[in-house]
Amino acid sequence: MHAELLPAHIHYAIGIDGGGTSTRARVVHRSGVVVGEGKAGASGLTQGIGQAWRHIKEAISQATGGRLQAGWPEPVPANCALGLGLAGANNAAWHAECLAADPGYATLKLESDAVTALLGAHGGHPGALVIVGTGAVGLALLPDGQRRTSGGWGFPSGDEGSGADLGLQAVNLTQRALDGRALPGPLTLAVLQATGGTPEALLAWCGAAGQGEYASLTPLIFSHEASDPDAARLLERALHQLEALARAVDPTHTLPLVVAGSVGQRLAPRLCALVGACVVPPQGDAMDGALTLCLQ
Amino acid sequence: MHAELLPAHIHYAIGIDGGGTSTRARVVHRSGVVVGEGKAGASGLTQGIGQAWRHIKEAISQATGGRLQAGWPEPVPANCALGLGLAGANNAAWHAECLAADPGYATLKLESDAVTALLGAHGGHPGALVIVGTGAVGLALLPDGQRRTSGGWGFPSGDEGSGADLGLQAVNLTQRALDGRALPGPLTLAVLQATGGTPEALLAWCGAAGQGEYASLTPLIFSHEASDPDAARLLERALHQLEALARAVDPTHTLPLVVAGSVGQRLAPRLCALVGACVVPPQGDAMDGALTLCLQ
Repeated sequence: MHAELLPAHIHYAIGIDGGGTSTRARVVHRSGVVVGEGKAGASGLTQGIGQAWRHIKEAISQATGGRLQAGWPEPVPANCALGLGLAGANNAAWHAECLAADPGYATLKLESDAVTALLGAHGGHPGALVIVGTGAVGLALLPDGQRRTSGGWGFPSGDEGSGADLGLQAVNLTQRALDGRALPGPLTLAVLQATGGTPEALLAWCGAAGQGEYASLTPLIFSHEASDPDAARLLERALHQLEALARAVDPTHTLPLVVAGSVGQRLAPRLCALVGACVVPPQGDAMDGALTLCLQ
Repeated sequence: MHAELLPAHIHYAIGIDGGGTSTRARVVHRSGVVVGEGKAGASGLTQGIGQAWRHIKEAISQATGGRLQAGWPEPVPANCALGLGLAGANNAAWHAECLAADPGYATLKLESDAVTALLGAHGGHPGALVIVGTGAVGLALLPDGQRRTSGGWGFPSGDEGSGADLGLQAVNLTQRALDGRALPGPLTLAVLQATGGTPEALLAWCGAAGQGEYASLTPLIFSHEASDPDAARLLERALHQLEALARAVDPTHTLPLVVAGSVGQRLAPRLCALVGACVVPPQGDAMDGALTLCLQ
C-alpha cells in the first residue's frame, strides 16, 4: 500500500484479517514502515459484534506495543485508518451493526475476509481467487470494478470440494462399507479408525460433528490417494469443483488466479490447462488487502 | 398379537411408537379387545428420558381413559406389559437409562422405533422394511432371528435418498444456478422462491435449516419432475438409494419387503423388478410391532 497517500492527520493504516478462529492485525506508519503485527481471538461477526471489536483492539495493541519510533504519535482511533476484513461482513445487518460500533477511527472500511483476501492476492488489481479450506469460495475483481462470487454457500448444502465436503463424502463411504452397500477399502478403514473404531462410535461421532470435524479427515483422503481408488475419486471430484468455482467467476480465463486454502494449495498443481495457465502466486495476504481498503 | 398368551397377572398389553415429534400408544386387553389409542408429545430418547416417560404415560392415559369395560381392572404398571419402540433406543447409554426409569411394569421391552416398525410390518415374522421419509433406513429380520440394518446414519453424512437429502441436493442445485456454475431451471426457481426469493435470503435460510427444513422442499422436486430433468434425476438417484438400502439387508431378494415413509411410498411403484417383486403391504404399524414385544 502507498501509506504516503494517507491524509495528513492519519498517521497509521491498520489492516485486519478476522475470522472464526483468530484476528490478525498489521499496522503501517504513514512513512511506509511496518510497525508490527498482532494476533487475538476470533472476530468473525457471527460470534458477536462486541467480541469482534474487543479482539480487533487487542490485536492492534499487540501490533504496536513497544514498537513506535521516536517522533511517532501514540496510535489512537482518531489518527488511524482502519481496514477490516471480517468473516460474516457480507451479512447486511451485521455489517451495519459493526460500523455503528466504530470507536472513532479517522476512516473505517469493512469488507468480508474473502474480499480482503482477494484484494491482497492481487494488490487491489483485477484478479480471481479461489479459497478451498474447510469451506470453498471463488471471487473475482473484474477490470470494470465489479465483483463476482461463486460457492461459499456454507456447509452442508454448499462448499462442494471443500475439506468439510471431502470429509463428509469419506464418512458416507465408510457408512456404506459398514452396512454392506459398498466394499470397504483402505480409506474407509482409516476413517472408521479415526472416528472411534466401531459403527456405534462412528454414529456418535457423526451426531456431534460439524464442518471442522469433517474437514479434519481430509489429510486421510490425501494420504490414501495412491492406495485407494475411492480416495483418488474424491480428490478428482474436489478438483473439478475447484475448477468450476474459478470458471464461474472468470469464464473467459483471462484474469490472474490465486488458489489458496489448505486443500486448494494441494490441488492447484493438478488444475486443467485452461485454469492452471491463469495461476499466479499471491502478491499479498488478507491483511494487505485490508490495508488497501484504508486508501479507498 | 395373541394377548391371551400373556401371564395371568398381566391384564393389558401396551404398544408405544415414540419419535421426535409424537408418542402414540395402543392398549389391548388380555381378551384381545383393543381398549383404545392415545397420542402425546415426543418420546425420542434424544430429547431426554424424563420427557419420554412423561409422554408415554400421557399417551397411555389417553388411550384408556373412560374406555374400560365392566370387570376390567384399572391399568397400573404392575398389571401391564409395555412394549416400547422409541427413536434413539439404539444408543446403548440411553437404552439403559430408559429401562432404569421403569416405573414398575410387569414386563418392559425396549427397541428402536425402526425395529418395532419392522416387527409391525411383518407381524413379527421375517421380512424387510425400508423407511424413506425425512431420513432413510433399511432393516430386516432374517429367518434365523438375526437383524440387519442399512443406512439410517443420520443427516447430513448419511440418509442418502431421504427427503432431507433430496432437499439438500435441490438447494445445492439452486446455489449453483445462482452463482453461474449451472443453468437455472423450473426446480431451482421454485426452490429460490420457497427459501426467500433472493440469494441473500437463501443464504440465511441455509444457515438456519436442519433436516426437517430441507425435507420440506421434497414435494417441489416431485411436482417439477415432469418439467425439469434435474428434478427427475434427483428422484431417480433417490430411487437407487432406496433399492441399495433394500439390497443391503436382503441381498438374495427373498424376504417380503415393506416400503414406508412419505418419500418411500411415492417411489415404491418405480422400484426395479428384482426389488419390486418382493414388495408386500404392511401387516401392521409400529404400535403393533411394539405390542409383539410384550409377548417376547
